[in-house]
Amino acid sequence: MKIIVDGMGGDNAPQEIVKGATMAAHELAQLDPEIFVGIIGPEELMLNCLRAENWDCSDPQRISDDVCRYGNIDIINATEVITNDEAPAMAVRKKKDSTIVKAMTMLKSGEGDAFVSAGSTGALLAGGLVTLGRIKGIRRPAIAAWFPKMHTGGTTLLLDCGANVEAKPEYIFQNGIMGAMYVEGVKGVKNPEVMLLNIGAEDSKGDELHKEAHKLLAGSSINFGGNIEGRDVAVADCEVVITDGFSGNVFLKGSEGVALAIMKQFKKKLTEGVLARMGALLAYNKITELKEMFDYSDAGGAPILGLKGAVMKVHGNSKAIEVYYGIMKAIPYVRNNVTQMIADAVTQNAELFRSGEEDK
Amino acid sequence: MKIIVDGMGGDNAPQEIVKGATMAAHELAQLDPEIFVGIIGPEELMLNCLRAENWDCSDPQRISDDVCRYGNIDIINATEVITNDEAPAMAVRKKKDSTIVKAMTMLKSGEGDAFVSAGSTGALLAGGLVTLGRIKGIRRPAIAAWFPKMHTGGTTLLLDCGANVEAKPEYIFQNGIMGAMYVEGVKGVKNPEVMLLNIGAEDSKGDELHKEAHKLLAGSSINFGGNIEGRDVAVADCEVVITDGFSGNVFLKGSEGVALAIMKQFKKKLTEGVLARMGALLAYNKITELKEMFDYSDAGGAPILGLKGAVMKVHGNSKAIEVYYGIMKAIPYVRNNVTQMIADAVTQNAELFRSGEEDK
Repeated sequence: MKIIVDGMGGDNAPQEIVKGATMAAHELAQLDPEIFVGIIGPEELMLNCLRAENWDCSDPQRISDDVCRYGNIDIINATEVITNDEAPAMAVRKKKDSTIVKAMTMLKSGEGDAFVSAGSTGALLAGGLVTLGRIKGIRRPAIAAWFPKMHTGGTTLLLDCGANVEAKPEYIFQNGIMGAMYVEGVKGVKNPEVMLLNIGAEDSKGDELHKEAHKLLAGSSINFGGNIEGRDVAVADCEVVITDGFSGNVFLKGSEGVALAIMKQFKKKLTEGVLARMGALLAYNKITELKEMFDYSDAGGAPILGLKGAVMKVHGNSKAIEVYYGIMKAIPYVRNNVTQMIADAVTQNAELFRSGEEDK
Repeated sequence: MKIIVDGMGGDNAPQEIVKGATMAAHELAQLDPEIFVGIIGPEELMLNCLRAENWDCSDPQRISDDVCRYGNIDIINATEVITNDEAPAMAVRKKKDSTIVKAMTMLKSGEGDAFVSAGSTGALLAGGLVTLGRIKGIRRPAIAAWFPKMHTGGTTLLLDCGANVEAKPEYIFQNGIMGAMYVEGVKGVKNPEVMLLNIGAEDSKGDELHKEAHKLLAGSSINFGGNIEGRDVAVADCEVVITDGFSGNVFLKGSEGVALAIMKQFKKKLTEGVLARMGALLAYNKITELKEMFDYSDAGGAPILGLKGAVMKVHGNSKAIEVYYGIMKAIPYVRNNVTQMIADAVTQNAELFRSGEEDK
């Protein structure tokens, strides 16, 4: 198995990305010698970053013109980069030797098994659609993110977080199928409960879009738990929460913004004045536990589901630790063949997947 | 001026509602003898609740068959109640002597100036549309709610919070006009900045609905600051954030849910173990400040904007204090004639208000 990581993606590329890759490679060397980490980017630059992490580069093996192996790390040469400022669709067509397009091409040809990137989400989506293509029957890929369960710990999968802002009931329904398969595949939760983010709990609630999606979900093979209101997601017991890309994005970012603002005030208040500082010192362990509870860094990034390959987006501002988790979380994605699980679920719900297909 | 409060609305009616009304009436007796609080509901029941609050009922003045005055509190007799379980449109047509319909009728006839209710939002909307009607040019009323500014204190007005789940660009645009006028009227902020809740900050971002709304807003007379992402609302410097009723509802409830979940964990952690408890004790004042920062109870409820009258919805689980704030916040709404301000803004932007009118 080879997990390819985008050496040029995100605000902290290349060094933090390479550092994260070496963290994963060190661990994988012990866990499973069959798993390789591929770092894709300009070869010389990547090699220098690798050396800067004191990775043993003394015994290189040339695998191909573009790939050179250093222990369980492969450096894959890609000379171009797609930035956040570029129009994604245009960029992926023009920059064939960009890290994103080349990695996707390797996933397609089987030279790689998963791609982890902190680069442009738009370019990852466009590259995925153009190069990898969609799983048969899937109308639109979706971006999924882990949301902390704030009452019990653990996480809930939320999708779509912004891949499709012009949603149709069929897309939301497909998000349910994809989300359920992903959670079952990577968490091993059998038949996970899926709920629909809506403005009321009763089946009759919501706009036409969500009412129609509700009908499709209720008739499908997945474990559908009905509607869930925004205020209940943070304390949800279900494994997956689905909605359209617009409200999903607004919900996810809104919740993150509130959590960050509260923790910031929290820190500020507990450093104001001697008493508060002493108090904070005494409660230090508990405060640390709190911080960890709302720390997303170990969530392991956001899979782009529905593509014919395992693609994982990690935050643009990811440090080595987020990259490391992204790589580690990609392994069960590949090992349990979530892509195939989704394809099978499509077949199992073939009737429903044909719904609304005329406006494909 | 008479502020009518729904004696039968919400989970804690009637006693907590009447208690809140007396709290306001006590204060208003000092502030302005021209302002009366009307409590609407079954006369005997309301009177008993008033007595239970030790309100001086020794010198009743019979104003009309339906209205009896006790100092600066009027008890208005209404024999019916619309519950949350009833289909709103049907209920407001059938129950003419319900607290909601009767209060709206009094607002229309000028016997009352504002209506504050913890009752069914659907019934308030339906009653408002049927009895009061919309301000000329306003296509749909919207529910507005105050959102805490978590970096500076104070609040941002958010609308629509769920009145219209099937939105059109014109509705979102009108939300901007109504929100700006409301903030100017009740807060006295001249030409307040309005931003559009969207999935990206750039003008080009969002679905067609929000892109079109953006165009209308940019061409209008209000102070439009462009798009704002979900993660920035909690620390927004603008006065008003607008969107469609679906994503607005999901955003507001989602943020509330996260804030509540965090504060709950916070409390839990800081009572675990002796050290944490001692720490919390030392930091008590700061922790109290934190709690207050995220306490919505003084926000004074959610105005339903766009109706020909001042209607204020307070939380269904409101206690006396929320009812009190709802009544007090209704006063500037009436005094500064926000309804007229909105009507004037419609005239000022007449061209834009005609946009999309064919599908009225």
